[in-house]
Amino acid sequence: AANALPTPTNPAPDILRCAYMDLVVTDLAASREFYVDVLGLHVTEEDDEAIYLRSTEEFIHHNLVLRKGPVAAVAAFSYRVRTPGDLDKAVAFYTELGCRVERRPEGFTKGIGDSVRVEDPLGFPYEFFYQTEHVERLSWRYDLQTPGELVRLDHFNQVTPDVPRAVRHYQDLGFRVTEDIQDEDGVVYAAWMRRKPTVHDTAATGGDGPRMHHVAFATHEKHNILAICDKLGALRRSDAIERGPGRHGVSNAFYLYLRDPDGHRVEIYTQDYYTGDPDNPVITWDVHDNQRRDWWGNPVVPSWYTEASLVLDLDGKPQPVVARTDASEMAVTIGADGFSYTKDETDASSLPSWKMGEYKLGHQL
Amino acid sequence: AANALPTPTNPAPDILRCAYMDLVVTDLAASREFYVDVLGLHVTEEDDEAIYLRSTEEFIHHNLVLRKGPVAAVAAFSYRVRTPGDLDKAVAFYTELGCRVERRPEGFTKGIGDSVRVEDPLGFPYEFFYQTEHVERLSWRYDLQTPGELVRLDHFNQVTPDVPRAVRHYQDLGFRVTEDIQDEDGVVYAAWMRRKPTVHDTAATGGDGPRMHHVAFATHEKHNILAICDKLGALRRSDAIERGPGRHGVSNAFYLYLRDPDGHRVEIYTQDYYTGDPDNPVITWDVHDNQRRDWWGNPVVPSWYTEASLVLDLDGKPQPVVARTDASEMAVTIGADGFSYTKDETDASSLPSWKMGEYKLGHQL
Amino acid sequence: AANALPTPTNPAPDILRCAYMDLVVTDLAASREFYVDVLGLHVTEEDDEAIYLRSTEEFIHHNLVLRKGPVAAVAAFSYRVRTPGDLDKAVAFYTELGCRVERRPEGFTKGIGDSVRVEDPLGFPYEFFYQTEHVERLSWRYDLQTPGELVRLDHFNQVTPDVPRAVRHYQDLGFRVTEDIQDEDGVVYAAWMRRKPTVHDTAATGGDGPRMHHVAFATHEKHNILAICDKLGALRRSDAIERGPGRHGVSNAFYLYLRDPDGHRVEIYTQDYYTGDPDNPVITWDVHDNQRRDWWGNPVVPSWYTEASLVLDLDGKPQPVVARTDASEMAVTIGADGFSYTKDETDASSLPSWKMGEYKLGHQL
Amino acid sequence: AANALPTPTNPAPDILRCAYMDLVVTDLAASREFYVDVLGLHVTEEDDEAIYLRSTEEFIHHNLVLRKGPVAAVAAFSYRVRTPGDLDKAVAFYTELGCRVERRPEGFTKGIGDSVRVEDPLGFPYEFFYQTEHVERLSWRYDLQTPGELVRLDHFNQVTPDVPRAVRHYQDLGFRVTEDIQDEDGVVYAAWMRRKPTVHDTAATGGDGPRMHHVAFATHEKHNILAICDKLGALRRSDAIERGPGRHGVSNAFYLYLRDPDGHRVEIYTQDYYTGDPDNPVITWDVHDNQRRDWWGNPVVPSWYTEASLVLDLDGKPQPVVARTDASEMAVTIGADGFSYTKDETDASSLPSWKMGEYKLGHQL
Ligand SMILES: [Ca+2]
Ligand SMILES: [Fe+2]
Ligand SMILES: [Fe+2]
Ligand SMILES: [Fe+2]
Ligand SMILES: [Fe+2]
Repeated sequence: AANALPTPTNPAPDILRCAYMDLVVTDLAASREFYVDVLGLHVTEEDDEAIYLRSTEEFIHHNLVLRKGPVAAVAAFSYRVRTPGDLDKAVAFYTELGCRVERRPEGFTKGIGDSVRVEDPLGFPYEFFYQTEHVERLSWRYDLQTPGELVRLDHFNQVTPDVPRAVRHYQDLGFRVTEDIQDEDGVVYAAWMRRKPTVHDTAATGGDGPRMHHVAFATHEKHNILAICDKLGALRRSDAIERGPGRHGVSNAFYLYLRDPDGHRVEIYTQDYYTGDPDNPVITWDVHDNQRRDWWGNPVVPSWYTEASLVLDLDGKPQPVVARTDASEMAVTIGADGFSYTKDETDASSLPSWKMGEYKLGHQL
Repeated sequence: AANALPTPTNPAPDILRCAYMDLVVTDLAASREFYVDVLGLHVTEEDDEAIYLRSTEEFIHHNLVLRKGPVAAVAAFSYRVRTPGDLDKAVAFYTELGCRVERRPEGFTKGIGDSVRVEDPLGFPYEFFYQTEHVERLSWRYDLQTPGELVRLDHFNQVTPDVPRAVRHYQDLGFRVTEDIQDEDGVVYAAWMRRKPTVHDTAATGGDGPRMHHVAFATHEKHNILAICDKLGALRRSDAIERGPGRHGVSNAFYLYLRDPDGHRVEIYTQDYYTGDPDNPVITWDVHDNQRRDWWGNPVVPSWYTEASLVLDLDGKPQPVVARTDASEMAVTIGADGFSYTKDETDASSLPSWKMGEYKLGHQL
Repeated sequence: AANALPTPTNPAPDILRCAYMDLVVTDLAASREFYVDVLGLHVTEEDDEAIYLRSTEEFIHHNLVLRKGPVAAVAAFSYRVRTPGDLDKAVAFYTELGCRVERRPEGFTKGIGDSVRVEDPLGFPYEFFYQTEHVERLSWRYDLQTPGELVRLDHFNQVTPDVPRAVRHYQDLGFRVTEDIQDEDGVVYAAWMRRKPTVHDTAATGGDGPRMHHVAFATHEKHNILAICDKLGALRRSDAIERGPGRHGVSNAFYLYLRDPDGHRVEIYTQDYYTGDPDNPVITWDVHDNQRRDWWGNPVVPSWYTEASLVLDLDGKPQPVVARTDASEMAVTIGADGFSYTKDETDASSLPSWKMGEYKLGHQL
Repeated sequence: AANALPTPTNPAPDILRCAYMDLVVTDLAASREFYVDVLGLHVTEEDDEAIYLRSTEEFIHHNLVLRKGPVAAVAAFSYRVRTPGDLDKAVAFYTELGCRVERRPEGFTKGIGDSVRVEDPLGFPYEFFYQTEHVERLSWRYDLQTPGELVRLDHFNQVTPDVPRAVRHYQDLGFRVTEDIQDEDGVVYAAWMRRKPTVHDTAATGGDGPRMHHVAFATHEKHNILAICDKLGALRRSDAIERGPGRHGVSNAFYLYLRDPDGHRVEIYTQDYYTGDPDNPVITWDVHDNQRRDWWGNPVVPSWYTEASLVLDLDGKPQPVVARTDASEMAVTIGADGFSYTKDETDASSLPSWKMGEYKLGHQL
């Protein structure tokens, strides 16, 4: 494509996995209550400015930083690399792309050493590191676990206007596509990309961006996700449940989307599949397939398509948001001229009312 | 109330539990596929006119009859009574109420003996029986079980215009109320009533009636219900999922609502609580409490409030439907002037968009 | 039988269900740690002498009393009756049987009013009551719940030398047998008896008695039981796990047996079946069927057969234990001359070594 | 060590993961019934000589070959490599080690192309391949799934006399140790080694070898494993359950061990943890820790320690078995002079009788 980013001649760093999100929140106490008291993430360390949280199985210092700040936004999508030397590669890779790059031998957060942060070509703040303090893996600490225990950081999800452009760039960075959503004209609405052998470490979702769509944690079983919903109900905080629980078509995982006190979206996710073979089959879903986003065909709420979090530049200022110009997934599926089918294209527009969702219904009134 | 039904001087029959529904379907093959191939109910017996189905734990002949007929409707809500002598009581009880009563010593269906059918004072076809063929209880037949195994018939749900009138009558019949939904003016929107010590054997839901809202089967665990959804997705029949899965506020059970090929609504349900003590606490929910119908606050789809199945008189003709004159639950909660709150009344109308639902949104456009 | 207890002419009290066990423990702090901190039972009330605990769904004051005392034993198996008037019936019933009877209008424990305690004809301290303080039913309090949440008191289990004698007496008291274990000569090794429509409120297990074999609490799902095991492992208290988890043949429930700090046995149990119809089929298991006690054929440890708790008379003194004279289940199945089969009698003694169990192996060395 | 195998100068092939086991069975129909009808593995292809089976998520041709033969044994432990070129590396690597090597461009089994088989220095038949037919990944085929669905091949387990010698060799082949069991003198009883980022692709278990201890398949949830047990009970095949279900200490996974009609041991396994970081913490368990093999402290049956399957050389002849000379895990833990502790070493030998197991008991009689 005309606007494609060049592939650097410098080799990409060898990324192991998504490792943590550095998240700016406006009320640290409210966020602590949500992530620690409600969701049960484990506090590795905390002070007046930031709280460092990890999931059960983690042995690196944290999977989530809650950092007090004036504007709710993402300060960094952070990935762990295989070796200390991969940081040099990251510097060269992004420098060649003309990106702003900052390296801090002491790290940008507690518990993490030598790190490189960049404003990537799509406007996202990406971080790479290897050095980290090891902390106790809590897998055997069943005495600490809750009914909704979050065991792993699973993935990020980024909103970006031009999905193929983003995909090509992240492929240059070493990611592999596992699944995507397209229409009959080849418009790409979203793509899932992985380093570790799961369906993804990050995904590109078409929309006004750069923005952060969600950060996802995994549970062991489906009932753990239901337990989170039940607990939110008991706390009279069910408003935090935005979408789900449900079964994804894409990824085949069981899911739930929550909104934290600042509106940051958090997914709880379990049971996708192994993707580690180089010839792992890529699955392309038709955007009009009503089971692609929810295997049970339950409607996606409009806010899930339209709302997302700002991301910060390396000075901590929100990145300006650029509008998507390709068709929007919401418009082509549940908009006035949009359509979705359950069984096959020939039965398009045959959805019963309970499957059309509020946005479709609004357009029809 | 002025229109209250009289309490008979003749004692009520001693009802054990809801036992089976006699359901008229328009396409026997399509219904068999749904209830047997998809839902996995076990066939006790079948012929060209009817299929007799039971759930795993059942030892009586059937919990559901699928009967071929011209109009999709309910032919009987059937209850088992404690002794053969309770049939005489049923005859006297309903005769005193001026109801049409028919007794057949050979039963109305295969596998069931001496039975009494009545057009009850609310217009519902009720059946009572004791005699039945015993069949194998399949609890230990794990070799036959599916991921979404239905283990018990749990309850019926009836739509009726005047809920307090219905409740009083069913209390005369020996039912006890366990939970209900009311508003600040004492309008009753629904009530749950039991004989066996669960939350209900039947419920009265306010609406145009008499109609059948749903029949419910229980699973052992929540994942069994999720498995039914997953299977419907695999069969590209997700349109059958009308509402849920979710957690009820009322009953505290985990639930799913399906629509069968004729539109009859089937609930899958698990894990309510023991109610067998005479002083079991009755729970009254505020109709504006957004967690009463779904503990997670997920919106109820309009069709769930408005659609229901016809019921038949003893000649097999559909009973005329009488309109509800009390306020409708949908109108007072998600209608133009309705409201719902999550935490307490003082935050009414503060629901985020994703909790308001399509009908509310439609009213707001 | 020659030694059969007479059936009283006075009618039996109408028992609703097993309600609580009054348990004497020697170290109140140690017991509190076990039942509250590990098992998560909820404290209704406590003082220096006793702790009153309940399960999630309970609305009566308690399901278990831990009472400090010099000898670990059971002070009462307590049942709730339908009406206050049933206490008069209890007095007359046991007085006619020549039993010691004590009635206390203020109750024997906190939170319970007018009560009758008796030394029953088999030597067990039985209690009956109707009056009780109502407390919050915690079913909706998911914020308080643990991964191994105990939701109901399910049943008691009593060791008694002559099982048919015990069964006949408890039938006189209104219990119905749901399942039992016999041999080809009609020797009865155990029987399960119910009031509420589950497999049992109590069971009679053949052995030296009167002793208390176990008290059982129910969870909602099987994973809740596994979570208790996992937590015990994390606390390095796995020695508390005596038998299981496993699937019962009898009752079809999923189970686990624990031993508390005094050695009292506690079962965790889930998912038996509805038994409320008067013609509920009784299941008789062959004592040599290796799947009767564990559906997976896993060996029963000898301690489970031989160890049990003392029971107290109404003065708080341990009842003397009378030896069983009928054959012992352990001897006829895994003893030197005993045998068990998996498929049918013709393959008796073909069990692989891993199914024989330590006692059988010990006899063979 | 004096007997250590040399590290080849030729680089090792880049192994992705354990891919399939080629298993010789003596009665193909009996094995088919076990693996297909009972365990629900999916048949990709079959003929009179062999059956090719896969798990739900698999897209390569098979994860298990059942091959008719005169002696029950393992014909190959097969691994997938990253590229076709890795086969050349495999040839060079093993040739340098002096091993017998055979390469077949058409593969050794249906559905697999160019392959290298070797008799590895420890006597195990190892295979490497890249080319394979892609088949349908059945993850979304919930209509085909059973309550005990096996979703992935997880790992192999090999019995070998000298564990450190084996570990060093497999490290040369590119494996990383994640956990092991040692005693205070440094004797190594078992070690777990991975390529894909789970706890293992294979493990070395100390014992007379080379033999195959087990092959393991993963389920999504723990209840799936329980469902397999329940089904075996229903089929009166519970004798196939050798050990478990239980929770491993090592790996933290939930497990079950079965024995197939030939006595080949199959593990069902779920929920270990991510190990893909190069500095993933290695966990060493004390052999005397009673929770190392079963986190709940339930005894390991002697057969689990002593019985295993033969492995074949490239001519299809059983490899001779060499006796272990190091201490045996069974002897040092439950043998006459062995001991195990639950909480810490200071309470060694304090195990209650139900935790000691049949072998320990036998030694004490
Ligand atoms: Ca589960
Ligand atoms: Fe996601
Ligand atoms: Fe219902
Ligand atoms: Fe029990
Ligand atoms: Fe294993």
